[in-house]
Amino acid sequence: MNFTLNILGTASALPVLNRFPSAQVLDVRGRLFLIDCGEGAQMQIRKMRLSYLRIDNICLSHLHGDHIFGLFGLLSTMAMLGRTSHLNIFAPKGFAPILKFYLSNFADGLRFSIEHHPLSMREPETVWSSRSLEMLAFPLNHRIDSYGFLIREKMPMPNVDKAAIARYDLTVAEIAALKRGEDVVRQAGDEVIPNAEVAYRPYVPRSYAYCSDTAPFPELPEWVKGVSLLYHEATFPEELASMAEKTFHSTARQAAECAAAAGVGRLVIGHYSSRYADTAIFLQEASEVFPKTELARECMTVEVPLVKLTV
Amino acid sequence: MNFTLNILGTASALPVLNRFPSAQVLDVRGRLFLIDCGEGAQMQIRKMRLSYLRIDNICLSHLHGDHIFGLFGLLSTMAMLGRTSHLNIFAPKGFAPILKFYLSNFADGLRFSIEHHPLSMREPETVWSSRSLEMLAFPLNHRIDSYGFLIREKMPMPNVDKAAIARYDLTVAEIAALKRGEDVVRQAGDEVIPNAEVAYRPYVPRSYAYCSDTAPFPELPEWVKGVSLLYHEATFPEELASMAEKTFHSTARQAAECAAAAGVGRLVIGHYSSRYADTAIFLQEASEVFPKTELARECMTVEVPLVKLTV
Repeated sequence: MNFTLNILGTASALPVLNRFPSAQVLDVRGRLFLIDCGEGAQMQIRKMRLSYLRIDNICLSHLHGDHIFGLFGLLSTMAMLGRTSHLNIFAPKGFAPILKFYLSNFADGLRFSIEHHPLSMREPETVWSSRSLEMLAFPLNHRIDSYGFLIREKMPMPNVDKAAIARYDLTVAEIAALKRGEDVVRQAGDEVIPNAEVAYRPYVPRSYAYCSDTAPFPELPEWVKGVSLLYHEATFPEELASMAEKTFHSTARQAAECAAAAGVGRLVIGHYSSRYADTAIFLQEASEVFPKTELARECMTVEVPLVKLTV
Repeated sequence: MNFTLNILGTASALPVLNRFPSAQVLDVRGRLFLIDCGEGAQMQIRKMRLSYLRIDNICLSHLHGDHIFGLFGLLSTMAMLGRTSHLNIFAPKGFAPILKFYLSNFADGLRFSIEHHPLSMREPETVWSSRSLEMLAFPLNHRIDSYGFLIREKMPMPNVDKAAIARYDLTVAEIAALKRGEDVVRQAGDEVIPNAEVAYRPYVPRSYAYCSDTAPFPELPEWVKGVSLLYHEATFPEELASMAEKTFHSTARQAAECAAAAGVGRLVIGHYSSRYADTAIFLQEASEVFPKTELARECMTVEVPLVKLTV
């Protein structure tokens, strides 16, 4: 039941020693979401011992090279490893010719289908869901068409307390009714078992939001409200706030302000400008606003623990 | 007067921990030739403290992803660093649509010209030269259109021995004649100064040949005959010779046989199959045939020393 963010790269556009450009893998119970795919992502996936073949969904926030130039290599590796299962790529509309180019030039031996789900929403929209998970995408405020992603566990079905089942000698039909959220009225009609007394949510659903390259904008904290874990880019410290504004990026302080306004559980920041070999200033500035901040580092994992509930 | 091979990557197509795909930089007196450009090449260039902006010539042996997927990132980095000087790319004909795609989709802010020199020769041809250097390209024998490269110093102009200049009291015209290779006949006609007595080549020209993915073929040793340093791919050891044949690759032994037949100074092998975490077997098999063999390693430099001559 793990919910783990794996950081593959923390750099912004220019190469820096021992940093890779933007890429992350969210591992939810063994299902891997690759979020952005900067150059070298496949090497980092290998290094972190993640499985190429368990990535079924790739999310590309925008089409700047430092977020996508690792994709061709990764797709070719998947093909060489004999992948046959379908692959979803959630990406801006402009990705269509890029995928077409790849398929026309480099897809010899590719035996799996790739579906581009074009993003063009103005506010959060569900773009993918399974029985227990869902993913939303939402627009960001960058120089080009850009999107963030929110991946969350759905509200789990209620459990019925085992002791209560024994105590009341509940029938299968009664248990099903309780799981639907109903109270149980015994056949005689003289006894009601309140749902809240015996049914309970087994755990608190976990959520992760990824805010790639973006300038701050008013709706963002609302859109990522209350997520367990927020990644927000923090390209510059405050001393380069004017540069952040000019390039449609955020400062570490602004990332923390978003986290605070959204009331998230924890914040991870990254996408550091190549000007800063030492990233301590980013942590310092963000922590002043939002103490539960961590600096993204290559090959770091951030686990969101499952909080189990009882009746 | 350095002549240094910098190894950026030694892997074949599949990612292996701590290996990068094919890429090398030959540094001849500060002029950098990038030879193949697998994913992550720009990070390795950074790590080896080579200058992005001193690369004026890029050689792409063939259009398989593990030899070119680092190119887009590198070109974007050059653009971000403000490059304005012209860039040559020597690559097979099929590279034209790839360059066009890059320029159409990712060249915002690019302020330098890129010229694709299409390769299609059947035997070695000079594709580039300067006052003191020249580069030849020649076909290889791979599954797709593939080329090797030979970069060499031109024969240097002769020097005239300083002691002889004083001894004979040589005039400027006589020195010029000696440098052209002529003997000097003094005006009286009764004295001849033989060229070989006073003129000499100041150093032995150095040369490097790069034989990327290829099966052995009869002409290859002749085409790289006598080079100071040969890189030859060695994807498999002998136990997978049938795999090498099937995929148009060479074994370590075959690479060494080429080196021995060509009478090269030294051999470096690489492009190891991902099956082999330990590459000792490659060195063992090659060294039996050609003792002056070295295994390519990421971030390794191989210096070809200048051999100075005197009269």
